[in-house]
Amino acid sequence: MSNSSAPRTLPIARRALVAAAATSFAGAARAATPDPAIVNLPDWSQSLGDGVQAHPYGVPSPFEKNVVRRDVEWLTAGQQSSVNFTPLHALDGTITPNGLCFERHHGGVAAVDPDRHRLMIHGMVAKPVVLTMQDLKRLPRINRIYFLECAANSGMEWRGAQLNGVQFTHGMIHNVQYTGVSLRTVLEAIGIDPRAKWVMAEGADAAGLNRSIPLAKMMDDCMLAFAMNGEALRPEQGYPLRLVVPGWQGNMWVKWLRRLKIGDAPWETREETSKYTDLMPDGRARRSTFVMDAKSVITSPSPQTETAPKGRMVISGIAWSGRGAVSRVDVSLDGGRNWQAARLDGTADPLSLTRFYADIDWNGQELLLQSRAQDSSGYVQPSKADLRKIRGVNSIYHNNGIQTWLLRADGQCENVEVS
Amino acid sequence: MSNSSAPRTLPIARRALVAAAATSFAGAARAATPDPAIVNLPDWSQSLGDGVQAHPYGVPSPFEKNVVRRDVEWLTAGQQSSVNFTPLHALDGTITPNGLCFERHHGGVAAVDPDRHRLMIHGMVAKPVVLTMQDLKRLPRINRIYFLECAANSGMEWRGAQLNGVQFTHGMIHNVQYTGVSLRTVLEAIGIDPRAKWVMAEGADAAGLNRSIPLAKMMDDCMLAFAMNGEALRPEQGYPLRLVVPGWQGNMWVKWLRRLKIGDAPWETREETSKYTDLMPDGRARRSTFVMDAKSVITSPSPQTETAPKGRMVISGIAWSGRGAVSRVDVSLDGGRNWQAARLDGTADPLSLTRFYADIDWNGQELLLQSRAQDSSGYVQPSKADLRKIRGVNSIYHNNGIQTWLLRADGQCENVEVS
Repeated sequence: MSNSSAPRTLPIARRALVAAAATSFAGAARAATPDPAIVNLPDWSQSLGDGVQAHPYGVPSPFEKNVVRRDVEWLTAGQQSSVNFTPLHALDGTITPNGLCFERHHGGVAAVDPDRHRLMIHGMVAKPVVLTMQDLKRLPRINRIYFLECAANSGMEWRGAQLNGVQFTHGMIHNVQYTGVSLRTVLEAIGIDPRAKWVMAEGADAAGLNRSIPLAKMMDDCMLAFAMNGEALRPEQGYPLRLVVPGWQGNMWVKWLRRLKIGDAPWETREETSKYTDLMPDGRARRSTFVMDAKSVITSPSPQTETAPKGRMVISGIAWSGRGAVSRVDVSLDGGRNWQAARLDGTADPLSLTRFYADIDWNGQELLLQSRAQDSSGYVQPSKADLRKIRGVNSIYHNNGIQTWLLRADGQCENVEVS
Repeated sequence: MSNSSAPRTLPIARRALVAAAATSFAGAARAATPDPAIVNLPDWSQSLGDGVQAHPYGVPSPFEKNVVRRDVEWLTAGQQSSVNFTPLHALDGTITPNGLCFERHHGGVAAVDPDRHRLMIHGMVAKPVVLTMQDLKRLPRINRIYFLECAANSGMEWRGAQLNGVQFTHGMIHNVQYTGVSLRTVLEAIGIDPRAKWVMAEGADAAGLNRSIPLAKMMDDCMLAFAMNGEALRPEQGYPLRLVVPGWQGNMWVKWLRRLKIGDAPWETREETSKYTDLMPDGRARRSTFVMDAKSVITSPSPQTETAPKGRMVISGIAWSGRGAVSRVDVSLDGGRNWQAARLDGTADPLSLTRFYADIDWNGQELLLQSRAQDSSGYVQPSKADLRKIRGVNSIYHNNGIQTWLLRADGQCENVEVS
């Protein structure tokens, strides 16, 4: 910290931590006598609990009933072409549990019978094919952990702080381990016309959602995935088959994938002309903005977390980049005037979520909490102000600006803008 | 393969694969006309599906309803001191979804209110403390992926092939990402008596399950975990607090953790004298067999998987070691006479599950499928026969012998023994 007026923070070194923790513990221990909860055994220590047949497929504790995906009713006209959001404020680590991965649909969740599902690959190929799920499961498999972010994540924030909760400002992201087949394996086997440059991917949902994707990307690292976090894809994530397009906007990760058409030009589908283009200040639109740039956000404390007490506090957040690995995250306590390096922890694969922490000692003064990610390409996450100077506020897509939470003296957070 | 009578396998090289896959695809495509399922759109392409409020906490597809934890009724007297098993045959990748992590309880699932839960740390310490969950959440956090295996996993197989399914022979294992606090941080802050050597960990369940654990292990890599795969621990995994003891038998990973007592000798609790010792042929018992040795198993094909068709086949399995990272897995198709290196894929952290694959071309002849893990210490998973020569068949614990599946000509697998 170069600015002496900045809030005091403890260096994140174990020696200092241990000393601070000892003080905190001494306080917690108070009279150093066993807590009544130990002496007077609670109910759950005095009677048998559920047996092993209670939940063949397990569910969270009833005490976690508020940790769920939530939608914002006024955001969309209906339920089937809508979105709900991952409860980032209540999560930690880097893996998103399947039941909490946000949903975004254009025609609702297709309820696909995997035995009847087919993937057709045709167009500029030597041999068009129609593949069953069993055909795909006979091909060599790979496992990869990737984040998936909707291009519209944080989209409501272009015009200023709007939604009071990280679930809603940043919750269109999840990060799971995919199992499936490398698309390169499949396309090479089929034989692609050397003049081919694009692939149209189409879903089997009622929207028939389709996108044009450069063949080069498909051959690089795309996957035909049939499992997430070890089990079959969830229905809302494209069961039984999803296209995985690492680092690129979620809309291109076509769910319930039924068709790949190989061609030499993009198809100009609705989802790449009317939608998923970025309207600039001069009225023109940026197109083909496929890659999700480096971004980060503090998930705790944030507006939906419990009131923060004074004293030692864990600042926890997530960072990601569609251009490689997150190489560094900085945290500011004063709205971006001063920065300190956060500690990165958890799986740190390229194109996947990274968890960061900053351990501070909070004296109860207001803080303006921010995080700023840097990726392996050298790119640094911009401020919202800098982003607006170039992009204006017309777009709803690709807002990767720095988020600010005001931590008030009462221990609650608010979504705010800093100039 | 040195033995010419061994079943023919294709080298796992992409060139060969692509050629084979092309053949397979040509067959699948048949007349190269679109499949009726594409032309005659299925129901799910013709009507809107569920909206985003259908499942605030998501659930698997109804088509996956058989992918659940299952128990074996005759194995235990009741439901509360019993076990159910992870459906390994239906999973892939390395992460286990929280809802499918096996359960083993001694007094049922304690239904703990996190606000009322306390962890007491006392005994040979400078300052005994009673900590709330909020106290723990103010300390620096770490994220680690670890396997947890019950010492009795594969225990029924000591006397020969018994249970016909990898879910039941090997399903007392799971692998998740834990978020929590390093125990070293906590113990250093409290101040441990230099003469202390052991820690007793006790759960808040009705069984008050307790185990003695060497202090050195606690200071090395143990964690106080409150989250798994990003969300709060599941009730059956110790919500709100579990001790994580990487690489060591699951019984020591005390759930609903309420007490850590520091001492200079083990406590000789029931769980380390009457249970969790290994009865040897001469009637004496091996004690303190904490570490789970290297082990692997083929999860697909296996007795519970669908009938395998001839042609290209993915052999998929998992491997792990409590002594480090899995360095190599070999697969045999002929009951251990010949071996070929499998391909490792997925997260490969030490003390966590590794996924392996072998891609073969099956001509429909009977195969005796085996896998054999080797770890970074150089240890090689033994055959069951070699293990029995030393340990006999009295124990129910620590059976890490090589598993054999007979793949019959009809495409079904059976659990068998080979001499």
